[in-house]
Amino acid sequence: MDRYIITIAREYGSGGSHVGSQLAQELGVPFYDKESIVSLTAIKSGFTEDAVKNVEEKKPSSFLYNLYMTTTELPIPDQVFLAQSQVIREAAAQGSCVIVGRCGDYVLRNDKDMLSVFIHASVEDRVSRIQNDYGVKADDPVVLLKRIDRQRGSYYRHFTQRNWGHAKNYHLCVDSGLGIDTTVKIIREALEGRNRINE
Amino acid sequence: MDRYIITIAREYGSGGSHVGSQLAQELGVPFYDKESIVSLTAIKSGFTEDAVKNVEEKKPSSFLYNLYMTTTELPIPDQVFLAQSQVIREAAAQGSCVIVGRCGDYVLRNDKDMLSVFIHASVEDRVSRIQNDYGVKADDPVVLLKRIDRQRGSYYRHFTQRNWGHAKNYHLCVDSGLGIDTTVKIIREALEGRNRINE
Repeated sequence: MDRYIITIAREYGSGGSHVGSQLAQELGVPFYDKESIVSLTAIKSGFTEDAVKNVEEKKPSSFLYNLYMTTTELPIPDQVFLAQSQVIREAAAQGSCVIVGRCGDYVLRNDKDMLSVFIHASVEDRVSRIQNDYGVKADDPVVLLKRIDRQRGSYYRHFTQRNWGHAKNYHLCVDSGLGIDTTVKIIREALEGRNRINE
Repeated sequence: MDRYIITIAREYGSGGSHVGSQLAQELGVPFYDKESIVSLTAIKSGFTEDAVKNVEEKKPSSFLYNLYMTTTELPIPDQVFLAQSQVIREAAAQGSCVIVGRCGDYVLRNDKDMLSVFIHASVEDRVSRIQNDYGVKADDPVVLLKRIDRQRGSYYRHFTQRNWGHAKNYHLCVDSGLGIDTTVKIIREALEGRNRINE
């Protein structure tokens, strides 16, 4: 199969990272998730991993952002985003892989070998997953989900000027309530279809 | 396989109706598209087919709508929507089928056997399809696409209070640029996955 890059955007608690990891394993290609991208971004940007984690996938604070903009240096969130985008492009340049989150679909939007996927799920499924699989203990898990949704949506909109989770931004959007295995199968079917067209 | 209802919402020119028809044929189940639903809605509502076509999938005019609301009778677009929803529910009650458009995903939102799909495509693919496959001759096909997108979006929002084309409204969203055959295969994979979960 020719080179392909699968980018996976996902709602918190949708199991999107699990889907990506299973997919990469089945396809035998590298998997870039939060941990590996944060670590590579820290090396590239010169910031510590904690500093990168602190700003990534969160929209910059307007107050701090405006303050930064009065200086000649790019605001830290922008520097991290640029370093992260560079990490993603370098990963993709090395060959087929699966990349989770970090606006990968936007960063690689001009790469004709990209297949972009968005994974979502019902609130019930997500609450059950973060409590049972991720071991999250929150007073109100629904409030937590909504807060993280808002953060990811704002981050995506800030850096891409696109609406997060709108079907037209992705080749494929799947409700993981159909099952993790089924979601992986659907993405593989889409990948094979796209390769048939590119042949 | 147990009873299932596949609803397909689609952008104009995305080939969504073709996908639905091929799917119904492969699965050997009834296919309800614009023609059959308009015809059944006309019978149910007592309006002519032309009157039904005139209001369906278009948001009611605000001026006429407000005028109607001053009378004791429901506005014609609402009467047509209600009759059409009844037609869709009756079709679904008869057993497995594929239903294209007409807010089927919303009308059947409480039917646990429903699999909802949204089909979209790039502007280039859609222009090519409406010109070559549908034989549409428009001075500016992109303007035509945008106008119909707006109509369908407003119609959907008016009657459902949801955003048309937002991934979370559907189990599955597919860019038909992956190929019509691939899109059909992906939907069948999703259907089988959902049936495994319901077993």
